[in-house]
Amino acid sequence: MKVAIFFGSKSDTEVMRGAANALKEFNVDYKAFILSAHRVPEKLEETIEMVEKEGCEVIIAGAGLAAHLPGVIASKTILPVIGVPINAALNGLDSLYSIVQMPKSIPVATVGINNSYNAGMLALQMLALKDKELRGRLIEFRNNMKKNFIDENGEGVEL
Amino acid sequence: MKVAIFFGSKSDTEVMRGAANALKEFNVDYKAFILSAHRVPEKLEETIEMVEKEGCEVIIAGAGLAAHLPGVIASKTILPVIGVPINAALNGLDSLYSIVQMPKSIPVATVGINNSYNAGMLALQMLALKDKELRGRLIEFRNNMKKNFIDENGEGVEL
Amino acid sequence: MKVAIFFGSKSDTEVMRGAANALKEFNVDYKAFILSAHRVPEKLEETIEMVEKEGCEVIIAGAGLAAHLPGVIASKTILPVIGVPINAALNGLDSLYSIVQMPKSIPVATVGINNSYNAGMLALQMLALKDKELRGRLIEFRNNMKKNFIDENGEGVEL
Amino acid sequence: MKVAIFFGSKSDTEVMRGAANALKEFNVDYKAFILSAHRVPEKLEETIEMVEKEGCEVIIAGAGLAAHLPGVIASKTILPVIGVPINAALNGLDSLYSIVQMPKSIPVATVGINNSYNAGMLALQMLALKDKELRGRLIEFRNNMKKNFIDENGEGVEL
Amino acid sequence: MKVAIFFGSKSDTEVMRGAANALKEFNVDYKAFILSAHRVPEKLEETIEMVEKEGCEVIIAGAGLAAHLPGVIASKTILPVIGVPINAALNGLDSLYSIVQMPKSIPVATVGINNSYNAGMLALQMLALKDKELRGRLIEFRNNMKKNFIDENGEGVEL
Amino acid sequence: MKVAIFFGSKSDTEVMRGAANALKEFNVDYKAFILSAHRVPEKLEETIEMVEKEGCEVIIAGAGLAAHLPGVIASKTILPVIGVPINAALNGLDSLYSIVQMPKSIPVATVGINNSYNAGMLALQMLALKDKELRGRLIEFRNNMKKNFIDENGEGVEL
Amino acid sequence: MKVAIFFGSKSDTEVMRGAANALKEFNVDYKAFILSAHRVPEKLEETIEMVEKEGCEVIIAGAGLAAHLPGVIASKTILPVIGVPINAALNGLDSLYSIVQMPKSIPVATVGINNSYNAGMLALQMLALKDKELRGRLIEFRNNMKKNFIDENGEGVEL
Amino acid sequence: MKVAIFFGSKSDTEVMRGAANALKEFNVDYKAFILSAHRVPEKLEETIEMVEKEGCEVIIAGAGLAAHLPGVIASKTILPVIGVPINAALNGLDSLYSIVQMPKSIPVATVGINNSYNAGMLALQMLALKDKELRGRLIEFRNNMKKNFIDENGEGVEL
Repeated sequence: MKVAIFFGSKSDTEVMRGAANALKEFNVDYKAFILSAHRVPEKLEETIEMVEKEGCEVIIAGAGLAAHLPGVIASKTILPVIGVPINAALNGLDSLYSIVQMPKSIPVATVGINNSYNAGMLALQMLALKDKELRGRLIEFRNNMKKNFIDENGEGVEL
Repeated sequence: MKVAIFFGSKSDTEVMRGAANALKEFNVDYKAFILSAHRVPEKLEETIEMVEKEGCEVIIAGAGLAAHLPGVIASKTILPVIGVPINAALNGLDSLYSIVQMPKSIPVATVGINNSYNAGMLALQMLALKDKELRGRLIEFRNNMKKNFIDENGEGVEL
Repeated sequence: MKVAIFFGSKSDTEVMRGAANALKEFNVDYKAFILSAHRVPEKLEETIEMVEKEGCEVIIAGAGLAAHLPGVIASKTILPVIGVPINAALNGLDSLYSIVQMPKSIPVATVGINNSYNAGMLALQMLALKDKELRGRLIEFRNNMKKNFIDENGEGVEL
Repeated sequence: MKVAIFFGSKSDTEVMRGAANALKEFNVDYKAFILSAHRVPEKLEETIEMVEKEGCEVIIAGAGLAAHLPGVIASKTILPVIGVPINAALNGLDSLYSIVQMPKSIPVATVGINNSYNAGMLALQMLALKDKELRGRLIEFRNNMKKNFIDENGEGVEL
Repeated sequence: MKVAIFFGSKSDTEVMRGAANALKEFNVDYKAFILSAHRVPEKLEETIEMVEKEGCEVIIAGAGLAAHLPGVIASKTILPVIGVPINAALNGLDSLYSIVQMPKSIPVATVGINNSYNAGMLALQMLALKDKELRGRLIEFRNNMKKNFIDENGEGVEL
Repeated sequence: MKVAIFFGSKSDTEVMRGAANALKEFNVDYKAFILSAHRVPEKLEETIEMVEKEGCEVIIAGAGLAAHLPGVIASKTILPVIGVPINAALNGLDSLYSIVQMPKSIPVATVGINNSYNAGMLALQMLALKDKELRGRLIEFRNNMKKNFIDENGEGVEL
Repeated sequence: MKVAIFFGSKSDTEVMRGAANALKEFNVDYKAFILSAHRVPEKLEETIEMVEKEGCEVIIAGAGLAAHLPGVIASKTILPVIGVPINAALNGLDSLYSIVQMPKSIPVATVGINNSYNAGMLALQMLALKDKELRGRLIEFRNNMKKNFIDENGEGVEL
Repeated sequence: MKVAIFFGSKSDTEVMRGAANALKEFNVDYKAFILSAHRVPEKLEETIEMVEKEGCEVIIAGAGLAAHLPGVIASKTILPVIGVPINAALNGLDSLYSIVQMPKSIPVATVGINNSYNAGMLALQMLALKDKELRGRLIEFRNNMKKNFIDENGEGVEL
């Protein structure tokens, strides 16, 4: 497994699927875990250790409300941790602030509210630092994205 | 020790002194600890266990920014945990939301931004549930507060 | 009765049921009252006195908009008062600020927006300070919560 | 006394002086009281009754933080109550929301944050409903305000 | 006509009906006008003059978005103007700020977001300053409100 | 005069000077007026008519708090009106929302909070639509801006 | 083509149609393009150059979330750029701030959230600076708007 | 050079120094550039290409206001881009939202407001994915941080 995806509640499954989708598009191995920083702190710690041993290189963590999961994980590993704020109240601002405003020395790489696809994409960009082939595919993906965008939207649209 | 006061950084000392002041006014034993949920998670856990063993009944925890400390403590004890949001950015809203919006089953009793005195007062009210004498003193304190307020502000002021 | 639950309007009944549910899970006696700080201030005062006489030890109060109910109750008793901000406008921020930002000396123990279950849980944690048996059941509840969480979410999920 | 000015703390004196200034400009009798909805609720109630007996027709109330004072006063009288949100935290938003978002049937006439002068002016406009001479002076004041504004700012400024 | 109700768009009719309802309950004469500060400024000015001539004593004005209507009316009369922020975007915060934050000397008596009923009630309280009979009915209304509240909600509710 | 600059209070002079500075850099004629939508509505209207007659093509209007000035001007002319939100409270959000959220058909071209220089620049861009020479100078200004930026910041900085 | 309308995603089509509608009402030529500052930066740049060559005088750009499109376009042309914040999250505040808070020298003329009709109207006002006939039609449109508003809403409404 | 640090204005130098400090602590090569997405877009693009050629693996970009720099860089490279929101207005919320809310497929790894040190730390964590020695030093750094924290804060503090 290259990437571990953590989130705090079964109800966040749909929002977090975007991260898995990005990784699947690039055939990158990942595992997903429902684990809560507050409800099962020991199991969380144990799982972080386990995924590190299994070769995990990047961790994605999504949470809503007082979203401590990404920050708590970041305090227990030096792997890069990507945080996904989930909108469960206050349009997701509670979660965004709880994730992005980490204190000095323990960063969480935060992406947009509910935007777990971008968490997957960011994980791929990190993995590409040591995987030239993946780097090539990311460049190709960008080029295709551009090409498809232009093909689809043509030379102007009716409005 | 009846109350343990935790906070995450030496720079929060002045803000948190209010909690100690409230407890001192009522001669209630407390100890204070600078401990971070992110920087020394194991030491934090160990200290929570220690204070519980020493008879601590209420925990007060203050933190700023992505303020996980109160919630992380609450996840490791069933003692009531009182959270003090500290204004270090965003007028303290990041901290308030990170503390008050805890998920189901793991509450933090949140007080106002930077209002650690109220955290101390709330701890006293909890302790009074089993301490009739303290209860009496709290009632007397309220009565004095009223009396002093009226004495000080008299029957109207110049404006 | 150990706990009194106050709220300001019949329309808040569903939101406040969570507090009752938490108390029922632990067989703790409570009574619920619909009372408004603004519409029936005298009846509110009278009821606070009554529940104190009947042995009530913790008060839970929920309100929306300019949510004065928890603070007004807190000004009339030295029992711990737990405030539940109810989302009736502005995503509940008007209510949250009206409850949590209490002035010096009159705290309200604020929980998350609409999260009345946590108010019930916090009341139980306070009652456990003088009830060892309840304390034991809360520890057991936490252990079961962990166990169930792990059983339910297993060793990783499909995503 | 035609107008009673209430506020919750000596520290709000400077902010509330604007209300008195507006009333003084029109030689309207007023009295000012420092009274807290949370600290001296009985004294507050008693004072409201007293000012009503003394002929008070409009009440101005200023408060910061969880600003319950204007709403609590409004619940105890049918005189119009004008609320002044005072900026003590959160740029005054906590106070603004606590004052303006009153529930159905108990309005508070809210003015701008820290803008107690406008509270005084609004009180004058209400009093003018039954005082033709005051009405005349308010119209004259407006006309003078216009004249002075134009005199002062002339036919364009250097920039 | 004692009260004039102004609002800016047919789409605000339902929100503003609350103001009319409050006035109807007390048999107070009112007229309602759809008029926009931006679209028909001259007609607005003319109508303000007309209602003043017809004996109008209080003006209620509701608007959404950049809600200038109440403030613009307030600049053209010394009658008390009550502003109703209407939620058309941003949960009504744009409208609230546009109405309540009026500059020195030109107040608008602002009520809660979409709470036009309270605007009607506040108008009644102002009118009662010179109408003893209305004053009596407002006191009776408050007493009935209390009585009904207590009758309806009894001595505690099931939860 | 090509551009008229309006603002509501002498205290806004420093903030609004930026607009004049931008126009001066391009030798474009302007006049500035301190005028308030609420205090001198008739004088405002008269001045708008006057500047239109004198050939004014773009209007810049700055205001703080419940900032109605730009919108009120926009309702009285079909010249493009550029609004500058001025920070007088709430970090300028009250002013921003009061200016940008104009209703359908009466736009205000809003620039950043306190950023009157950009209002001047935007006015220049509009004037350049019919003034080729000015257009040329704007392109030159951009090119110089780039050149200077690069010259000043070189090929990397010490950090 | 006099006006070019740019937006970042097919899903914004309905919101942006308002801009086209305003231009159609005045028979002003426009073209619309779906182009993203982030996904097809080169194509965007190329299209800006193309529309400039084809005589475009005003550019309208709408975007949601971290809405860079209007600002990026503004950095590549000295034509006036009108920005439309689109509500895709956070009630549109992320988009509003990303568009309106442009740095010194590169303004975007921002209109209200989702209010693309006003972007079209503002473009017309700019074009009228050099098109007397269009100017006449805009004045007529305003007059008709007033007349229709008054006809439709008559001399008061039932409420 | 392993890391390139970009920011938009000389005035951001102090805020951004934290990123450099983190990298210096670990003797990781970096270069810093003052470059603006809006003022010198071509120079920015050219510099991105140059740093990629020189072996740069992670890009850090800080900006205030409508902070497009990190997102614009991210659209031009598949290297991971770390965004630092800088507080220049609105407590930094304009910048935070402009950076974190990037659209699908073009992520920016956002850290806390003004917290450029964490951007440096996150860059180090990414570089450690392919540099075992650096990985070892990061683990050692964490261990030392813990040790120092405990040494400094001892077994409880005076309060």
